[in-house]
Amino acid sequence: MTDTGFREIRASVPVLITESESSSLIDEELALRAAREAFVASTTGTAFPVVIGHASANRFTLKSGSAGDLVGVKVGSYWPGNVEIPRHNSTIVLLSPETGRLAAVVEAGTANAYRTAAADALAVDALARSDARTLTVIGTGNQALYEVRAVARVRPIDKVLVVGRRPEAASELARAVIDYTGLPAEPAEAQTAVGAADIVVTATTARAPLFDAAWITPGTHISAMGADGPGKQELPPELYHRARLFCDLPDQSSAIGEFQHAGSAVLTPLGAVLTGAAEGRRSPEDITVFDSSGFALQDLTLAAALLRRHHDS
Amino acid sequence: MTDTGFREIRASVPVLITESESSSLIDEELALRAAREAFVASTTGTAFPVVIGHASANRFTLKSGSAGDLVGVKVGSYWPGNVEIPRHNSTIVLLSPETGRLAAVVEAGTANAYRTAAADALAVDALARSDARTLTVIGTGNQALYEVRAVARVRPIDKVLVVGRRPEAASELARAVIDYTGLPAEPAEAQTAVGAADIVVTATTARAPLFDAAWITPGTHISAMGADGPGKQELPPELYHRARLFCDLPDQSSAIGEFQHAGSAVLTPLGAVLTGAAEGRRSPEDITVFDSSGFALQDLTLAAALLRRHHDS
Repeated sequence: MTDTGFREIRASVPVLITESESSSLIDEELALRAAREAFVASTTGTAFPVVIGHASANRFTLKSGSAGDLVGVKVGSYWPGNVEIPRHNSTIVLLSPETGRLAAVVEAGTANAYRTAAADALAVDALARSDARTLTVIGTGNQALYEVRAVARVRPIDKVLVVGRRPEAASELARAVIDYTGLPAEPAEAQTAVGAADIVVTATTARAPLFDAAWITPGTHISAMGADGPGKQELPPELYHRARLFCDLPDQSSAIGEFQHAGSAVLTPLGAVLTGAAEGRRSPEDITVFDSSGFALQDLTLAAALLRRHHDS
Repeated sequence: MTDTGFREIRASVPVLITESESSSLIDEELALRAAREAFVASTTGTAFPVVIGHASANRFTLKSGSAGDLVGVKVGSYWPGNVEIPRHNSTIVLLSPETGRLAAVVEAGTANAYRTAAADALAVDALARSDARTLTVIGTGNQALYEVRAVARVRPIDKVLVVGRRPEAASELARAVIDYTGLPAEPAEAQTAVGAADIVVTATTARAPLFDAAWITPGTHISAMGADGPGKQELPPELYHRARLFCDLPDQSSAIGEFQHAGSAVLTPLGAVLTGAAEGRRSPEDITVFDSSGFALQDLTLAAALLRRHHDS
């Protein structure tokens, strides 16, 4: 399923790609290509049950899967006490499909931020109106800037509104958006920002809706990036009766993603939209919602792509 | 602290210990010490749900846990088509308890064989009669010789009987036992060998009992090393009404270990015997059974011990 050469570049000695190398190898184009590959593979590959482990106040998740010649696991860590380094980190383990032995280990803290944002960009590219120009981002954590950059590559964004609980954090992110993307950006109140948005991206650890369903105008696309465990929630369920719902893996999204709050609503996998098996947006008035709960094939295709770039460089 | 922007991730570079290094660092003493540490830690540490994944005919398991300053996961692989290298392989990932980032990756195929045999030796040391001299091993796979060597370190074994479905494989293992341990060893029929045994070790992938319960004489200790998944079975359940049952993790042993066939029998964790919280053997006539289903802390203590030796060497 990988386009080039995973087989040839597997050595008998495993490859370790450190954080500093992976963060210099990664870019948005690689991440987007790997994401597309993963979402297409998700329609035929296999994801195994997610493990959520803990070590005192810290948490880790294991997401494993196999598809084509990729088999492995991503260890995601969330250490809330981290100060100097991000609280989220990520390690991807690829096994040799031929022997089951370790093929590569990729530290992918920064790369993981690109990978998550790439899923958002893929969803936006498939589902948002092609003339979407105003992007509202809710959440001012480490992930937010990656989301803005990824989305701005696939739509003609000309205004970024930033919503955060802490005004100074929202101002800081708005400044970072200006610095890193050149786009006009400003902090805004939730109601104003949501009402003005063509695209809303939520990237928080919230456990309750971040806005009122009535504020969403027809034609808006919403990407909910945050929910990845029981009890987490970013969106108002009142939205769902007038929206079309998409996600990465329906079973997982219903269990630990945003759509654990969507009752029996119909969930369409984004992979099926990408392969043409399901419809995406049907009219400029559609409200589309994409939930990203995250799946191993995203990590495996990302690691394989980084490995190819490692060998080529 | 700022939450926005592209943060430099300051690298403390993770350690990769390859198979060739770990197989030269490992020995029985290190493995036994790590096993003891793991079983004691099992009384207070945490094991998370086991994932059993697959990639076509191949299978992998994820076992994760945390205890004290250890947190991580072992990826065990079983690739039945491997010919030149063992079908079982093992990769251990240790996270930094302080940051959640990757601390070390240890390829531990050979080391895993020592680790599994060390659990057996620990059980034998805690449960078998101190005058146990005749060891019967059932199964002639890669693991068997490690079991014999580990058990012979903790009891005055003076005779090894080898039971296998294929006579030539049993003869070959008997020769290997002689070569590697200097102990007298010979192939034997199951009934004879089980009846003569002070200690029986089973190390197979069986899915049905390997011997008749009536053949086991009073005072025997049995270590069942093989069962690690639904449907696997090495021992006759008729044995259980006259035996005392021990295992690594009772919940796991009942779910995917040998004791999935033990009904509601009382299972005592070996860790509790080691800490003195539970009784082991009570008389020379006791029949004791130990089931090893395998748990992550064994792998984490093993990897940590290998890492210490790597840094010292």
